[in-house]
Amino acid sequence: MSEQTNRYHTSGKEKEVNLPSIFERYRKEVDNELRSIFVDYHLPLYDMMRYHLGWIDENGRHIEGTAGKALRPILCLLACEAAGEHFHKALPSAAAIELVHNFSLIHDDIQDNDTERRHRPTVWSMWGIPQAINAGDGMRAIADLAILRLEDRGVPQKKQQRAQRLLDESCLRMIEGQYLDLSFEGQFNISVNDYLEMIDRKTAALMSCALQTGAIIGTDNESVIERLREFGKNIGLAFQIRDDVIGIWGDQDKTGKPLASDIHRKKKSLPVVYALQTARGTAREEISNIYKKSGITKQEADRALDILNEVQARAHSERMAEEYRNSALTELEKIKTSRWARAHLEEVAYFLVERAF
Amino acid sequence: MSEQTNRYHTSGKEKEVNLPSIFERYRKEVDNELRSIFVDYHLPLYDMMRYHLGWIDENGRHIEGTAGKALRPILCLLACEAAGEHFHKALPSAAAIELVHNFSLIHDDIQDNDTERRHRPTVWSMWGIPQAINAGDGMRAIADLAILRLEDRGVPQKKQQRAQRLLDESCLRMIEGQYLDLSFEGQFNISVNDYLEMIDRKTAALMSCALQTGAIIGTDNESVIERLREFGKNIGLAFQIRDDVIGIWGDQDKTGKPLASDIHRKKKSLPVVYALQTARGTAREEISNIYKKSGITKQEADRALDILNEVQARAHSERMAEEYRNSALTELEKIKTSRWARAHLEEVAYFLVERAF
Repeated sequence: MSEQTNRYHTSGKEKEVNLPSIFERYRKEVDNELRSIFVDYHLPLYDMMRYHLGWIDENGRHIEGTAGKALRPILCLLACEAAGEHFHKALPSAAAIELVHNFSLIHDDIQDNDTERRHRPTVWSMWGIPQAINAGDGMRAIADLAILRLEDRGVPQKKQQRAQRLLDESCLRMIEGQYLDLSFEGQFNISVNDYLEMIDRKTAALMSCALQTGAIIGTDNESVIERLREFGKNIGLAFQIRDDVIGIWGDQDKTGKPLASDIHRKKKSLPVVYALQTARGTAREEISNIYKKSGITKQEADRALDILNEVQARAHSERMAEEYRNSALTELEKIKTSRWARAHLEEVAYFLVERAF
Repeated sequence: MSEQTNRYHTSGKEKEVNLPSIFERYRKEVDNELRSIFVDYHLPLYDMMRYHLGWIDENGRHIEGTAGKALRPILCLLACEAAGEHFHKALPSAAAIELVHNFSLIHDDIQDNDTERRHRPTVWSMWGIPQAINAGDGMRAIADLAILRLEDRGVPQKKQQRAQRLLDESCLRMIEGQYLDLSFEGQFNISVNDYLEMIDRKTAALMSCALQTGAIIGTDNESVIERLREFGKNIGLAFQIRDDVIGIWGDQDKTGKPLASDIHRKKKSLPVVYALQTARGTAREEISNIYKKSGITKQEADRALDILNEVQARAHSERMAEEYRNSALTELEKIKTSRWARAHLEEVAYFLVERAF
């Protein structure tokens, strides 16, 4: 369920990864908005959240360079500019979306029993499951309060309400996706279509929400709003499929995760679902049996990887990611926007299916 | 963390408890509003929520008579009528508040490791912790969507926004209370004041929100809104203290919990916090030691109960609950309302500190 991330060095000293250049434009602004939201929160409850957001260490000391990519808020701001409005107006929504995403990560880490995220112990592994549930619940409540700040940015009431409803609906869809993803663990006849319906909720819903919200704040043109929503949905699907590929074939140093990590966790990610569906003969029996029994040995994981390679699960998954990216780009062609915005949206779309982290 | 509840027989055949008569007026309406919210939700994710709400059994079969008291939504509707408006207008808020309360119960049961609620297995004990986290998260998201229905009831935009912000803020305060309550487990110098600050958040915040929200929808008179808010806060404190008393000295048949259940769980409820603070000499040492060591034997629980009795912890707690009830009644005296509404608000206030479940 977790999205592969890498240490992102805001200090600039040690930039290991090539994020699209647009990230530089917005990242500091998103960070400032998020930090200003937390200014009045003093209980240690909030320090768990600050820890998760990469602002402090477990002793409350200020740290740098451990935050996430802030992909969703950046896309929200970019959509707002692409739709013709100054990105400042969308900052409260961008922050709220990032907080909803992070609330889900705190709870995901409990659900997946993950002890590390971004090279650091997860919240539950530091403070226990009960308080980690509170940290996630609290972050979700703060997201709701964050979006109310749209009023201070002069966003009209009707647009505020629409952004609010969209965030609530997208959050519920994301939880549906999380529910489906977990329920797949006990099911052995998941089709590629089932998988796509799941990631449409788990990942694409909030990504699509980010783009659509930025567009709602940026324009009254419903066609632009609709196209950017579809762009968001498609890059969301592509993003998750790329995540699945990295989860199996990713570079350990870049992902911060063990080799073939999702095979060892027996995640029903796309390459596995595809192999379970398309393998034939003894290979089919073998991979089915590996995924049906509890636990997995090193040997079984290696055999599963072999079967994935035999059916070309990686190439097939990468092709699907590219197709969704292309669908996203087709949506983009349908709207009028600045050359500048279009170039940056395209750059992000390419980045999402090519990234190694 | 859990509130003692009893089987409430909506069928009317076997009414074991005396709820204030106002519950009859609103209960069905609250139930209808809640059920209409769930009409379009079909994934099994939502069946976990329906199960928790007492509408279906674990196999999805319709059942009756296992729902909670719906105290908060009923108080919200009563406040709306007391403030001079038809209660129908407040139904979306009433439902949203009940859903926020129930989201917190689903997560509380995980946090407290409680396997039973209202004489039935808890959600996590039926479906596991990961999916129970999703069920709670989903119910929280539905609460947010429920409150948006205020628009359909003709509630002015400004009041909608105020109700929304109040619910979000109250929800966050409730989570703060939950955080403090859990953190008290590892602390041994909790004062009665610390305890009061905790329940002010954990319980009084949402109760106060229920009354204030009803008042906001019912009137523009800020003084009435403020008084009903304070009434809600004070009955919330009284309610929680009564809950603590029942958690130790409650009738097993009525609470559905084992005798002296909160002693065996070593909860830092008011009678215990009071005893830890006021016991002297060897009794002080003894009870401190019992609460400092891990686990508790039957003999130690009996000794703790003896010490609670020696310092008259029960009488002291009951007196405090009565004082908060009286403060609530004083607030009520300050507003103009119908004789009808006043009588019902008073009846609820008395019920909350006298109830046995």
